[in-house]
Amino acid sequence: MSHKILVAQGGGPTAVINQSLAGVALEARRYPGVSNVYGALHGVRGIVNDDLVDLGQETVGNLEAVAATPAAALGSTRDKPDVKYCQEIFKVLKAHAIDTFFYIGGNDSSDTVRIVADEARKGGHSLRAVHIPKTIDNDLVGFDHVPGYPSAARFVVQAFAGANLDNIALNGVYCAVVMGRHAGFLTAASALARKYPDDGPHLIYLPERIFVVDKFLTDVKETFERHGRCIIAASEGIHDEKGDAIITKLMGKTEKDAHGNVQLSGTGALADLLCEEVKSKLGIKRVRGDTFGYLQRSFVGCVSKVDQREAREVGEKAVQYAVRGHADGSVAIRRVADYAVDYPLIPLESVAGKTRVMEDHLINDAGNDVTPAFHDYLRPLLGADMPEVARLRSAKVEKANVLEGDVT
Amino acid sequence: MSHKILVAQGGGPTAVINQSLAGVALEARRYPGVSNVYGALHGVRGIVNDDLVDLGQETVGNLEAVAATPAAALGSTRDKPDVKYCQEIFKVLKAHAIDTFFYIGGNDSSDTVRIVADEARKGGHSLRAVHIPKTIDNDLVGFDHVPGYPSAARFVVQAFAGANLDNIALNGVYCAVVMGRHAGFLTAASALARKYPDDGPHLIYLPERIFVVDKFLTDVKETFERHGRCIIAASEGIHDEKGDAIITKLMGKTEKDAHGNVQLSGTGALADLLCEEVKSKLGIKRVRGDTFGYLQRSFVGCVSKVDQREAREVGEKAVQYAVRGHADGSVAIRRVADYAVDYPLIPLESVAGKTRVMEDHLINDAGNDVTPAFHDYLRPLLGADMPEVARLRSAKVEKANVLEGDVT
Repeated sequence: MSHKILVAQGGGPTAVINQSLAGVALEARRYPGVSNVYGALHGVRGIVNDDLVDLGQETVGNLEAVAATPAAALGSTRDKPDVKYCQEIFKVLKAHAIDTFFYIGGNDSSDTVRIVADEARKGGHSLRAVHIPKTIDNDLVGFDHVPGYPSAARFVVQAFAGANLDNIALNGVYCAVVMGRHAGFLTAASALARKYPDDGPHLIYLPERIFVVDKFLTDVKETFERHGRCIIAASEGIHDEKGDAIITKLMGKTEKDAHGNVQLSGTGALADLLCEEVKSKLGIKRVRGDTFGYLQRSFVGCVSKVDQREAREVGEKAVQYAVRGHADGSVAIRRVADYAVDYPLIPLESVAGKTRVMEDHLINDAGNDVTPAFHDYLRPLLGADMPEVARLRSAKVEKANVLEGDVT
Repeated sequence: MSHKILVAQGGGPTAVINQSLAGVALEARRYPGVSNVYGALHGVRGIVNDDLVDLGQETVGNLEAVAATPAAALGSTRDKPDVKYCQEIFKVLKAHAIDTFFYIGGNDSSDTVRIVADEARKGGHSLRAVHIPKTIDNDLVGFDHVPGYPSAARFVVQAFAGANLDNIALNGVYCAVVMGRHAGFLTAASALARKYPDDGPHLIYLPERIFVVDKFLTDVKETFERHGRCIIAASEGIHDEKGDAIITKLMGKTEKDAHGNVQLSGTGALADLLCEEVKSKLGIKRVRGDTFGYLQRSFVGCVSKVDQREAREVGEKAVQYAVRGHADGSVAIRRVADYAVDYPLIPLESVAGKTRVMEDHLINDAGNDVTPAFHDYLRPLLGADMPEVARLRSAKVEKANVLEGDVT
């Protein structure tokens, strides 16, 4: 029997989403029964617009070069299909006699795969539909971790390691805002930037805990008094006890995306607000804020080799499950040893539309740092080749007898 | 004759300033006549406070590890010494019988070296004083380029290469603000992120040209109509025809540093302002801004090997000029071939307190991009190992005959 495959990419790009794409395209070449591998441009929108490209005409060399390139080579979309939209998708799949559908994306994308699979079943059309995971947020239920997260985490670690050195050199308070609306995994990664006992970030604020401005100021004050400096990692999703985003306290108006979410990324407002609080309330003079923004998911040349390999493998496994196993589902990552993983196929219903947040044992009691368990969790994901930093050992020179008033 | 050396680091940290420090410390070990190599903590402030460490007690292994670490291992300072301050410096140097002084820094630091050398001469004290260059701004007069700039430029290139891919995937307008108050070299580096003809940044705004908001909006509109997207690189130092920073148009109050400069870094306000202009005036919906902030000078793991080598060499040359050559000055970098450099010692007066900006032939006539000459200038500085990106070749699949109204 001959198979026609369609693959698409949805949601925010990552450093390794193209590894999964290459994994699908290259693995499919091993099966004589696969007649075509198509890609849809800009996710589900490319399907309903019948805007497809033939991945069978790509060279291995170019597929490998694309695999090593961040972002989404097929283009992506923020469209979140409803049932009607999924019916349109199914119509195009049917017209092309496509019997295998892969969607690389987060929990919204897995929901799309679920609905499309349902529609096919209802219409009596034989369709294999497999969700291939990616998200820098690491928020898929049933996964140990999600491809894209380790590389973004690596960026955050390297950024905070550098910011810490910069802050040691010039002191003051430094606050950086990290992506992650509901899940704090990416912000938490900043903890692994620490090497020496007084290294920052000294304070880490996650969306899993309520953010109280006064507590924040007390934390900063204490840290500044102890170290003469303070580095803060804050999630863009930090919110008050009512669930209102801290950023909305600053901004008069807020922009919402197609999913009805407040725009948290693409603005430096939250970092500036937090810095202003520290300056005005604590009277500290040198206070600087950064917002890592899109760099953390797109920066060229910062990737975890573990993440690269796993993203490739979930793409390959998706083809194996669909073409050999004739099964639908989501290709999960499970940790089976320290460090080794398996890729079980899990039901779409267990992933679709659900959000994982950081488990309690990963966050400290004060709610302003992670636990050693989080270090153990993240460390193997970053890859063995993390750049190292070092300090001078600083053997003090005895002070000279400088005569006061020696110079007029 | 026995020599005592003191080295210090001033101004903003860079990715390779510690290479110069290691260059001084390791080169000095070759000379039996050098009895001590001291480092001052936090630049000139560490000297006046007599806060010195003994670099002779560092191992080669640790000096090499520190050399590969960004920021300033001795600590830095924003203090800009006046004549009185320099007299205090000289007093401490004299008390320790230090006869050789190296200051690693930008044009302010070279001015400090100049004044200290003058004071020594006036006081009849034999002192060799050599300025070792560093600045990500690349704004030292008499230099082909300055250590620190190539690595920061590399960060900007890798960041824009990724932002461009992200923008291809999700479209819209993206505006990133890059450091550089008076000199646009670092912002201009963004041009080298382009590979394919429609790659961004499509527009580059430098402090060497007057920024006119209406012209900016026209540029963005035209680009967006042509490509369906637009990427903008803007220097933090862009200003209007009166010389007022564009950022001050947004901010009610402004913070000034010890040098009387308006604070341009450590805030995301300028990017947010430019995005708001595009959204409100052009009606484009997806508009995102980033401010690269401190990452561009401190990010761990993004360094130009050419920059590393040259930063090491200017440190070594400083010792050779001072100890062997008994000369004062600034160790310059001159390009003598494509690509090869020499390190002449140039007079401190020719560097001190002066600012180089981008020469006219490096900027296009419209004032919104660089010229091919700038590409030729920067390319060899980035190193031969720049990460590459690739696109799918996208062979289109013929549209299927999708029956309208097929699904109810």
